[in-house]
Amino acid sequence: MTAVYPGSFDPVTYGHLDIIRRAAKITDRLIVAVASNSAKKPMFSVDERLEMMRAVCAGIPGVEVASFSGLLVEFAKKSGAVAIIRGLRALTDFEYEFQMALANRMLDENIETLFISTNVQYSFISSSLVKEIALLGGDAASMTPKIVFNNILQKISGL
Amino acid sequence: MTAVYPGSFDPVTYGHLDIIRRAAKITDRLIVAVASNSAKKPMFSVDERLEMMRAVCAGIPGVEVASFSGLLVEFAKKSGAVAIIRGLRALTDFEYEFQMALANRMLDENIETLFISTNVQYSFISSSLVKEIALLGGDAASMTPKIVFNNILQKISGL
Amino acid sequence: MTAVYPGSFDPVTYGHLDIIRRAAKITDRLIVAVASNSAKKPMFSVDERLEMMRAVCAGIPGVEVASFSGLLVEFAKKSGAVAIIRGLRALTDFEYEFQMALANRMLDENIETLFISTNVQYSFISSSLVKEIALLGGDAASMTPKIVFNNILQKISGL
Amino acid sequence: MTAVYPGSFDPVTYGHLDIIRRAAKITDRLIVAVASNSAKKPMFSVDERLEMMRAVCAGIPGVEVASFSGLLVEFAKKSGAVAIIRGLRALTDFEYEFQMALANRMLDENIETLFISTNVQYSFISSSLVKEIALLGGDAASMTPKIVFNNILQKISGL
Amino acid sequence: MTAVYPGSFDPVTYGHLDIIRRAAKITDRLIVAVASNSAKKPMFSVDERLEMMRAVCAGIPGVEVASFSGLLVEFAKKSGAVAIIRGLRALTDFEYEFQMALANRMLDENIETLFISTNVQYSFISSSLVKEIALLGGDAASMTPKIVFNNILQKISGL
Amino acid sequence: MTAVYPGSFDPVTYGHLDIIRRAAKITDRLIVAVASNSAKKPMFSVDERLEMMRAVCAGIPGVEVASFSGLLVEFAKKSGAVAIIRGLRALTDFEYEFQMALANRMLDENIETLFISTNVQYSFISSSLVKEIALLGGDAASMTPKIVFNNILQKISGL
Repeated sequence: MTAVYPGSFDPVTYGHLDIIRRAAKITDRLIVAVASNSAKKPMFSVDERLEMMRAVCAGIPGVEVASFSGLLVEFAKKSGAVAIIRGLRALTDFEYEFQMALANRMLDENIETLFISTNVQYSFISSSLVKEIALLGGDAASMTPKIVFNNILQKISGL
Repeated sequence: MTAVYPGSFDPVTYGHLDIIRRAAKITDRLIVAVASNSAKKPMFSVDERLEMMRAVCAGIPGVEVASFSGLLVEFAKKSGAVAIIRGLRALTDFEYEFQMALANRMLDENIETLFISTNVQYSFISSSLVKEIALLGGDAASMTPKIVFNNILQKISGL
Repeated sequence: MTAVYPGSFDPVTYGHLDIIRRAAKITDRLIVAVASNSAKKPMFSVDERLEMMRAVCAGIPGVEVASFSGLLVEFAKKSGAVAIIRGLRALTDFEYEFQMALANRMLDENIETLFISTNVQYSFISSSLVKEIALLGGDAASMTPKIVFNNILQKISGL
Repeated sequence: MTAVYPGSFDPVTYGHLDIIRRAAKITDRLIVAVASNSAKKPMFSVDERLEMMRAVCAGIPGVEVASFSGLLVEFAKKSGAVAIIRGLRALTDFEYEFQMALANRMLDENIETLFISTNVQYSFISSSLVKEIALLGGDAASMTPKIVFNNILQKISGL
Repeated sequence: MTAVYPGSFDPVTYGHLDIIRRAAKITDRLIVAVASNSAKKPMFSVDERLEMMRAVCAGIPGVEVASFSGLLVEFAKKSGAVAIIRGLRALTDFEYEFQMALANRMLDENIETLFISTNVQYSFISSSLVKEIALLGGDAASMTPKIVFNNILQKISGL
Repeated sequence: MTAVYPGSFDPVTYGHLDIIRRAAKITDRLIVAVASNSAKKPMFSVDERLEMMRAVCAGIPGVEVASFSGLLVEFAKKSGAVAIIRGLRALTDFEYEFQMALANRMLDENIETLFISTNVQYSFISSSLVKEIALLGGDAASMTPKIVFNNILQKISGL
């Protein structure tokens, strides 16, 4: 089975990496798909997000990293994927993810959304929390890989 | 019973129309009330939203379309309504709607909020989802009336 | 509009009465329907529950009290009702009520379920809480009418 | 990928069948696992549930039907499965399923739980609802295959 | 501040112990209160539950263990407590706990309920899950202290 | 016990005051901490928010008012606090607050977050609702102290 794991990954956290490692074990080919058409102004450009994702995914078998724009289901179909992987941390995730899964099913019935629960120790981590803690001078090194945390600190010092 | 069904309707979807049809059957007079004082920048002007709403509600007995600004309960009272109709799709709707119902009850005890559950096949549809799919080049024609979808496409091509 | 407000009412609480008063204001005829085919062993018989309900509803205009068995939508149709009224207190209510509303809609498309939010001061009251507090020797007199609370105390002393 | 789809299936509904069909498309081998050690007194014996499940799954490629007792993760491991499939209908499902997924992950880290959202038109269907409607004399034929509904009616008439 | 941490503790888990340790740090005196009037048939008698609780709480400064029957707020008042401590693991906990906190506040305005979130690694553990896993032959030794797990195994072998 | 009750308090409502009064009864020293580094553009400056908070907290024993920037846990530690107090009104509060509590615990294990449920009559009040109602010409005088409501009206008239 080929699957797509989409996200803005601005930046990637240990929570995302946990989902990638789990998904890689149950798929033949996993495409981590970095969204380039996000409404929100990202901290990192698509190229920076791709570079960080490639660095942290190196060595996980069967994982490819790519960017996409437009409809996710179109990207999935073009990539030969039959499933979309999404991580669930908590309730509010669930509501939004559920609605997106139903919308994507309406857009293309042949692509299924599979939800995986995040490891509990990462259940409260999000990209925005990591950035907020870093901005307030806190230590988010246990939430995201070192290379990513250093990049955040560099972005902040350049503000 | 006269009731008000308020919303920003930017634009109206099949989910809204489902609620309007259901509400029309249990009320003597249903006023679909298009909010003009929305904080968020709408895609369509109040006049455009009124025009689309009038077009899709034509032929549903007992339904009137109007715009309002200021407090919803003031508009309801002035209109002779004793109830506010709200559609519920999912959990997050519920929380927000519940708080608004309690706030409106505090502002005017004589106007009751009635919740109707949306048809399951429209449960994942929202105005913002329709616009997002259209912006990404997807086909949202099953989520909103043809006249509305064409107007969205026209707006997008003019961006 | 004729509507049905169903429940086991074992026994009726101030929360139920709040919904009955609100529903009576927006309906022409409100049938409070005491369910006789409950799976759970009730504290009060159907006749006792009917008698208490009639006592506390006396004087609310347009309210009738009846018992029913079998499918709720069949009872509603036979009674000439076009709507079912349900009170919502909290989230877990919502989930269950939502599923029942969808099931009832499948069984009869012409009967709509209308949800009304309970007054916040009654939001934590339920029949089972009233009975539990009374059984533990607590004072539940602010949660249910005096006539009902006395009946509970009598039942408990007879255990 | 080999996966297990466990449940009590007392009896199987169109909601379960929807999940089975979706799961079959993304797995090489799907084992529908009927639980024999349920705490609740079932309407149908394990053998009856197995027979009905085999009847309704006949013709879906890659699907096997089996019963199991003891820990689900032990059964999954013995069956060569790397994933457990669970359907999600609504919020309360989610909470319970999430806790079970975390518990199963603690018991065996190598077996992942994958959640699939049920088709919206089956989102309010459950085995207990089907039985309750049938017991009250209602028509649940749109919620479960004809062979199953007939078996329920036979069970009820024999009560 | 003196506080009460009530529960049926049938039996105590690492999740309970986590709350006890956290609560002990912010209170002068913490009374762990084992409920004797539970509706559900417990696996362990009150005396057995008290004994296990005393064993696992030994050495945590400021913690006392006691049993109680009747209303919790009455026990709290008699014990000189001004607060009730409750652990929150997840959403469904929250709903129930919230309603109980409001009910207890109605019964005695001077006793406040304080909620503490359980450590994420214990968030999916409950007394009933521990017993269920043990009954199915699984290893719940990471969910509850060794002395408790041994007692469960002894109870099961004696069934 | 010394505790911190943080918030943006833009402006303080009767809901906040309810939590402050309850928290003051179970703490030796309560520091109401007005956040100065909010992402959102506030209606009132930090100095204005501090002045209003001091006015409405005058006379509540053991309560101090201060502003803070940077990480909350750092401020708490510097203030000698061992606990953070947060009010819970509803479900969506819970999710967000839970995640923040877990993040703060990760940043400093020695500071516990204690949740208190808001009085039901204030459960639907928020700073943004108060401002929205005032902007629409409604009477929010029952939601916030008179001095605060007058300040809002003055701000609005100066827009």
